[in-house]
Amino acid sequence: MAKDMNISLLFDFYGDMLTEKQRDVIEFYYNDDLSLAEIAENEGITRQGVRDSIKRAESILMDMEERLGLAQRFHGMRNCFESICAAAGEIRNLNKRHSYSRDIELQVEKIIELSRDLSEL
Amino acid sequence: MAKDMNISLLFDFYGDMLTEKQRDVIEFYYNDDLSLAEIAENEGITRQGVRDSIKRAESILMDMEERLGLAQRFHGMRNCFESICAAAGEIRNLNKRHSYSRDIELQVEKIIELSRDLSEL
Repeated sequence: MAKDMNISLLFDFYGDMLTEKQRDVIEFYYNDDLSLAEIAENEGITRQGVRDSIKRAESILMDMEERLGLAQRFHGMRNCFESICAAAGEIRNLNKRHSYSRDIELQVEKIIELSRDLSEL
Repeated sequence: MAKDMNISLLFDFYGDMLTEKQRDVIEFYYNDDLSLAEIAENEGITRQGVRDSIKRAESILMDMEERLGLAQRFHGMRNCFESICAAAGEIRNLNKRHSYSRDIELQVEKIIELSRDLSEL
């Protein structure tokens, strides 16, 4: 069973739609990188039981994304903000090279700070 | 029954988790602003049936937001992007007043254009 790294991302968005048990196995498997055998031992269930539980949780997460597409929407926004951050950095450099304006620098700082806030949302 | 305007917003995020019938009544009621009686006539069900269906759909949407909080996350991002746009406008004005740099203006345009892309995501 290959680990699908998109699952971690989808888990971040839709994890709270899973049962507690499903959340546990996904966290063990994807975030803590435990093996099926290790999770089986921790949870006191069979390796096949763990595998089924992960598969079920993955399919719920993927179905949610297929319906709602919110992870992709967020991802698009993040990309935009990274580009904004890069453009603000360019302005900072240009401002340094041209006749320097402290006020422009302050606005650049504001943009970069806002982009940082965003990455925490 | 007071219309809760947040429902339109939540519907935009989570509408695809509703059944087709639930989506229809929410759209008629919130987006097309039809009355319960009008929807009842269109759908060939009782006014009470429409009311129940709307209430059920609203509670699904609100439960989704309570669990996932994605509408609120998105809203926070929108606010950030509006502030970024305002700061970029400020840089534009400052750049005009100070010794003008065409290169700074180009980067400002890029930021404003990216912000416009964002509002379509």
